Amino acid sequence: MKDRKLRFGLPKGSLQEAAIEKMAKAGFNISVNDRSYLPFVDDAELEVRLIRAQEISRYVEHGYLDGGITGHDWIQENGSDVHEVVELLFSKATRQPARWVLAVPEDSPVKSVKDLAGKRIATELVNVTKNYLRRHRVKAEVEFSWGATEVKAPELVDAIVELTETGSSLRANNLRIVDTLLTSTPRLIANRVAWKSPWKRQKLEILALLLQGALEAEAKVGLKMNIAEKNLKNLLESLPALRRPTISGLSQAGWVAVETIIDEHVVRELIPQLKAAGAEGIIEYPLNKVVY
Amino acid sequence: MKDRKLRFGLPKGSLQEAAIEKMAKAGFNISVNDRSYLPFVDDAELEVRLIRAQEISRYVEHGYLDGGITGHDWIQENGSDVHEVVELLFSKATRQPARWVLAVPEDSPVKSVKDLAGKRIATELVNVTKNYLRRHRVKAEVEFSWGATEVKAPELVDAIVELTETGSSLRANNLRIVDTLLTSTPRLIANRVAWKSPWKRQKLEILALLLQGALEAEAKVGLKMNIAEKNLKNLLESLPALRRPTISGLSQAGWVAVETIIDEHVVRELIPQLKAAGAEGIIEYPLNKVVY
Amino acid sequence: MKDRKLRFGLPKGSLQEAAIEKMAKAGFNISVNDRSYLPFVDDAELEVRLIRAQEISRYVEHGYLDGGITGHDWIQENGSDVHEVVELLFSKATRQPARWVLAVPEDSPVKSVKDLAGKRIATELVNVTKNYLRRHRVKAEVEFSWGATEVKAPELVDAIVELTETGSSLRANNLRIVDTLLTSTPRLIANRVAWKSPWKRQKLEILALLLQGALEAEAKVGLKMNIAEKNLKNLLESLPALRRPTISGLSQAGWVAVETIIDEHVVRELIPQLKAAGAEGIIEYPLNKVVY
Amino acid sequence: MKDRKLRFGLPKGSLQEAAIEKMAKAGFNISVNDRSYLPFVDDAELEVRLIRAQEISRYVEHGYLDGGITGHDWIQENGSDVHEVVELLFSKATRQPARWVLAVPEDSPVKSVKDLAGKRIATELVNVTKNYLRRHRVKAEVEFSWGATEVKAPELVDAIVELTETGSSLRANNLRIVDTLLTSTPRLIANRVAWKSPWKRQKLEILALLLQGALEAEAKVGLKMNIAEKNLKNLLESLPALRRPTISGLSQAGWVAVETIIDEHVVRELIPQLKAAGAEGIIEYPLNKVVY
Amino acid sequence: MKDRKLRFGLPKGSLQEAAIEKMAKAGFNISVNDRSYLPFVDDAELEVRLIRAQEISRYVEHGYLDGGITGHDWIQENGSDVHEVVELLFSKATRQPARWVLAVPEDSPVKSVKDLAGKRIATELVNVTKNYLRRHRVKAEVEFSWGATEVKAPELVDAIVELTETGSSLRANNLRIVDTLLTSTPRLIANRVAWKSPWKRQKLEILALLLQGALEAEAKVGLKMNIAEKNLKNLLESLPALRRPTISGLSQAGWVAVETIIDEHVVRELIPQLKAAGAEGIIEYPLNKVVY
Amino acid sequence: MKDRKLRFGLPKGSLQEAAIEKMAKAGFNISVNDRSYLPFVDDAELEVRLIRAQEISRYVEHGYLDGGITGHDWIQENGSDVHEVVELLFSKATRQPARWVLAVPEDSPVKSVKDLAGKRIATELVNVTKNYLRRHRVKAEVEFSWGATEVKAPELVDAIVELTETGSSLRANNLRIVDTLLTSTPRLIANRVAWKSPWKRQKLEILALLLQGALEAEAKVGLKMNIAEKNLKNLLESLPALRRPTISGLSQAGWVAVETIIDEHVVRELIPQLKAAGAEGIIEYPLNKVVY
Repeated sequence: MKDRKLRFGLPKGSLQEAAIEKMAKAGFNISVNDRSYLPFVDDAELEVRLIRAQEISRYVEHGYLDGGITGHDWIQENGSDVHEVVELLFSKATRQPARWVLAVPEDSPVKSVKDLAGKRIATELVNVTKNYLRRHRVKAEVEFSWGATEVKAPELVDAIVELTETGSSLRANNLRIVDTLLTSTPRLIANRVAWKSPWKRQKLEILALLLQGALEAEAKVGLKMNIAEKNLKNLLESLPALRRPTISGLSQAGWVAVETIIDEHVVRELIPQLKAAGAEGIIEYPLNKVVY
Repeated sequence: MKDRKLRFGLPKGSLQEAAIEKMAKAGFNISVNDRSYLPFVDDAELEVRLIRAQEISRYVEHGYLDGGITGHDWIQENGSDVHEVVELLFSKATRQPARWVLAVPEDSPVKSVKDLAGKRIATELVNVTKNYLRRHRVKAEVEFSWGATEVKAPELVDAIVELTETGSSLRANNLRIVDTLLTSTPRLIANRVAWKSPWKRQKLEILALLLQGALEAEAKVGLKMNIAEKNLKNLLESLPALRRPTISGLSQAGWVAVETIIDEHVVRELIPQLKAAGAEGIIEYPLNKVVY
Repeated sequence: MKDRKLRFGLPKGSLQEAAIEKMAKAGFNISVNDRSYLPFVDDAELEVRLIRAQEISRYVEHGYLDGGITGHDWIQENGSDVHEVVELLFSKATRQPARWVLAVPEDSPVKSVKDLAGKRIATELVNVTKNYLRRHRVKAEVEFSWGATEVKAPELVDAIVELTETGSSLRANNLRIVDTLLTSTPRLIANRVAWKSPWKRQKLEILALLLQGALEAEAKVGLKMNIAEKNLKNLLESLPALRRPTISGLSQAGWVAVETIIDEHVVRELIPQLKAAGAEGIIEYPLNKVVY
Repeated sequence: MKDRKLRFGLPKGSLQEAAIEKMAKAGFNISVNDRSYLPFVDDAELEVRLIRAQEISRYVEHGYLDGGITGHDWIQENGSDVHEVVELLFSKATRQPARWVLAVPEDSPVKSVKDLAGKRIATELVNVTKNYLRRHRVKAEVEFSWGATEVKAPELVDAIVELTETGSSLRANNLRIVDTLLTSTPRLIANRVAWKSPWKRQKLEILALLLQGALEAEAKVGLKMNIAEKNLKNLLESLPALRRPTISGLSQAGWVAVETIIDEHVVRELIPQLKAAGAEGIIEYPLNKVVY
Repeated sequence: MKDRKLRFGLPKGSLQEAAIEKMAKAGFNISVNDRSYLPFVDDAELEVRLIRAQEISRYVEHGYLDGGITGHDWIQENGSDVHEVVELLFSKATRQPARWVLAVPEDSPVKSVKDLAGKRIATELVNVTKNYLRRHRVKAEVEFSWGATEVKAPELVDAIVELTETGSSLRANNLRIVDTLLTSTPRLIANRVAWKSPWKRQKLEILALLLQGALEAEAKVGLKMNIAEKNLKNLLESLPALRRPTISGLSQAGWVAVETIIDEHVVRELIPQLKAAGAEGIIEYPLNKVVY
Repeated sequence: MKDRKLRFGLPKGSLQEAAIEKMAKAGFNISVNDRSYLPFVDDAELEVRLIRAQEISRYVEHGYLDGGITGHDWIQENGSDVHEVVELLFSKATRQPARWVLAVPEDSPVKSVKDLAGKRIATELVNVTKNYLRRHRVKAEVEFSWGATEVKAPELVDAIVELTETGSSLRANNLRIVDTLLTSTPRLIANRVAWKSPWKRQKLEILALLLQGALEAEAKVGLKMNIAEKNLKNLLESLPALRRPTISGLSQAGWVAVETIIDEHVVRELIPQLKAAGAEGIIEYPLNKVVY
């Protein structure tokens, strides 16, 4: 059975580095050789292919790949019939979800999708946009944009449907967001036939478990502190964020150590409160994986 | 009250990456978009501006910024009347403080500041240099240097006042250090009016607490080891560096686990001693924040 | 005695960044100034020289350096008479050892070293290759290759002896591996006279201890989890990988915390098993050093 | 009339630098500012827009642009109804025309387009490929490729339609060319309405004349030589490449100077012949423009 | 006399490459070695120093340099008493002179310099700006800007004085030009004492002659064409731009060759006219130097 | 006969760009594809191989290549028995020949090769250095240097033999030149058997002729000027550099045009003299090839 292989697609290009880093955090080290299109992976049961994010769901659907990581947006655009194993919440500096939005020039008369009748819209997500217009019973022309979509309005088109996180690129181009068509996150997907194979399914589930554990760990930190036993109860009651901490004795009588795992983004509010509640020697440390 | 904003200046340019990294370690994620001069920060109460380190104290003094991070050197050079909230000890590979030194060519007759009478000095820190000469009652010409100051002596000027850490760039240019004018570290500063506003002051104090916690953590590590109970007392007495350790029992009878937080730079001397004292399974782990 | 100095060679060029990073992990921070060939190191007892890996053993043998880090391959090629203090297992993404292999074009008639009689071989490792041929009593011409060795066969030479890790560069050039001449890992070596000096030997042994501790930590992680006491025995018996864990009580009655240090590459198999055995709140955290 | 403007599209991206260089050679200097999407052009009657080559013909057809430079391939793919003013033969190092070819893996059974029935083909030129299959009455699936098309066969598709010049990238991927669908060169195109406006048409014709003159000059050189009058007739008769030369007297009696314009790529064969025919002091000089 | 040396300053930094290229076109090849601050120049009578453009006039005035190339702006800012040998018109793609302009936010109430009373202005050209305000009898605060001046208004200052060529960076920052303070071009300057030395003066004059010849050539081209003799008179009369052409006979009876030197930027208008006047075989060729 | 091929080696690496540029100037356009080791060349009779300069003469000698371009230094070092077709004088900014020099630290007692007895010398040119010592009857140790040779003295070796042009890198490392072992220029070489094949010899001679013509042109320029006929004789007599000029009549009576080809590096001295002799409208233009 040592020749069992799971063929797995990772996004090539702008998301490639992030995807390979997440795989490494999950425990699968991939090295890409410029002279060879077959990346090396330190798991003999895994065969990795680097493919454009836009195309992964297509090749998973057709069975050329058993599974892969791609965005919800491109699964929708391709209308691919695949099994979605898990949503992968890549943590980002911005902590804003990636959204495909309908945007128009600041001074455009367009206020809602209804005002788009007879207009021209440029986007990379042609099918999703056409479906959106159909749902709103609006007839407009949708054209495929090969890039730099945000500079096309108003000169070349009336509106665009474009990806944004913080909206700063749209603002820099004097565009106004009218509506959100789709919020997209990365997904681990599987071919429907592969998902029925016990071994492939188990392999994909382990990948999902470890990737989730790694992603979870990016948004969490370990927190330890010392506190006088008499203040402990008050600390725990007043700070429900300290969910199920480990309490252990210290060599110094009357003091205990409290340790817990916590969302990284609440730490900046929590530490001043911990100090106020009598905690000392507060330390925060990084995590590689968190699996509940 | 959700529209409360603290306007905060970070140094643009060579220190920018380090400043943004420290802010992220403190818990404030900033993303800079090349097409937009307003960085995004994941705290709705914070507005970040990237401004040259040389100018931050000026804009904090005038109230265009509520606070900011800049160097002690430029606060002095600008003679800015600002409130200094805290000194931030950015840890560096070199662990040498940044110093502005008076330097002359190796074979210059200048031995002390007194020998500079009638000479010409190039520096980016004109006012600090003039004050220094005035204190020593030396009359010399000080000219503003637009850069590459260290190659100007002796051909274009007699002496320079320049920033150095390890002195290696000065040595490479055959310059000799005569005196140190100023040792500079980063400071978190506040506008004096903003500092009197309770909300802004509290916000600035939290920023200070978390930045200090993150910087402290860069210079510290966690250390854990196992030791036979009979050797514990000896270990703790002979190694005062192991300040207030956490002692916990192990499943193996007669053994305990010892855990502490310690300066990273003493570890290389401590580990051989710990082994000699009977410690086993010594592990060192990284920290994100340390708040006492 | 404060002027005691150990002169230590690190590889310049492609391995330089890795070597400096490992030294930093061991606790010795080195900063390289482009304008100065003497790197700064934050240990007054250490003088670092950056020298090509191919030459380090030669200068250690001759006593220009007291010690250094270089590859086993180049010690062999130079036939250097040095003391090998320790093998340093640099962990890599690929986890494959670096091997010098004899390779020929896919369609070459050469099946073993015996078939090389009268052929021409290009390699950077001329002496090792000549010794290998001598041991197999094969007469062939060995020529020094100045680089890009893998594109020389079959047009310019019949075979090559080249370094490989995953073999992917050889495959991309349609080459087939015939034999392995040498498996090479980094070594910390010492000059034989320096090794007899008590102070230098102690200094070299501390360097070795800390470097090994840092390298060990790269391949290990810390693992913590909570488990019901009733399941603990079963967990520990069925998972011998959890060697000598620390068990501590939790605030929640009937539950304990289990903590251990483990090889990073087994985690991906272990976590699903831990979950199956009833473990909860499994976290994995990174380590800086592990010293047994 | 000083506000007359011709809106002209140039390809953005990989062809941008070449297009701007050719425009400069034609006498129109364009400077692109990273912070502004409107390039500056030193002709007040011209407004330049940088747009993806794939989209230019679409915007010219719709009248958002009066004219532009784009490839014959994308005009065909878009099926754009535009006026083609002139073919622009960009000279290249390779002097090979860019061709869109049908390629299959070396060991594929596919020998001609007829063998593609029921197969899957990846390409960026979907419409051209579908038309090609229709003409040959072959039913096959054509899918849009987002890039890296040449690595898709045979794993993900059976064949590709891809752009090539020298074929070396196809060979490096072990692909075999089966047929050529389209040979493509850059074209200067005009909107049909703009072409009817006398001023716009004249402006476009001047652009065409100057661009052609600049391109012609890239493939030509000036050649001068001295020859004894008695050898002149023989020289001119035996070398028809020296079309309509300028003959002028020299201060040295019995000698004349011969000067002509000639294809750069015949010079390497011509010079040895000229020497053999008695020419001396042969010099070749570069040209900026050649207009017949 | 072979040790005569002229010490000459060229601008370091953003203008360095252009200055070295112009010197090479003038016939003086300079090679800059990263490890040495003394550039090599292939003229034993010349010693080149690379110094910031802002400082060159200062060191020429003081006699540390005999001469140099710098901008009119920085000579004015430094108020340097130097001899201006010649204005050097560096040709640029944009053909716009570099101007220091007073700019304010688009929606600022400031319409003229008079409206600046009591306002704050940021600039790198502090003295020039103060003199300008004094001339207009306006009292305003002028502060030195360390860079990124164009993003400071309106948040940090009310107005800026900044360098611009095409104005596109100002427009991208939503700034409006109120007035031009200074138009600046490069100048070759000399120290007043050096200028009185016959040898140094002659050397500087030769440098000036050759630099001007090289710059002149950048804006000019050679133009040759054939024309029937009967059309020649008409051609020359109707096209005064063809100043003093060289007319020579052709081997073809009744035809002559016309050759002239002409401004490169009129060629795009001239060629269509030449064709209309009966010219054939028009060629344009590049020039290295033009000295009248 | 259309399958005749000449296999030709060009230096890979630091000299590659220059070699390909010279070949293009000679009329042979080569394009290097990163994914393919076989460069494309627009001459079906030529097959180009990119090989390290150090190895080319070896492969030409053995017949794997028919010819190639490499340095005289490496032909000597390899002791290769090849036919030298022509010396190629690559013009350089520095106009200094590349020399291999014996250099020692500034303060070394070594004054001549005789003082090297018993010393250690590092060099990349081991055989040439050993031959040099043998000729001077000096016994010293010569070791192969893998690079960065100039920083090895005095710490690791007593002297070095290293390549230099302007000597500035040696000076920056405080080294003093003791002697010159070899002055090296590029050579076009041929395999001795290939040289006897008429077709290969003719092809190599054409390559040589065109390369020399292109190199000659880099060091020459065309010069044209107008002068009154009465001043012509004086001009030609006093300026012998104007060798065999072309004199032609001008439309303006009493004036002639003088045209010649001249060494580029004398132009800077000649132009002031030409002006003094009454020349007007002096223009200098670039050349592609000069073949006498």
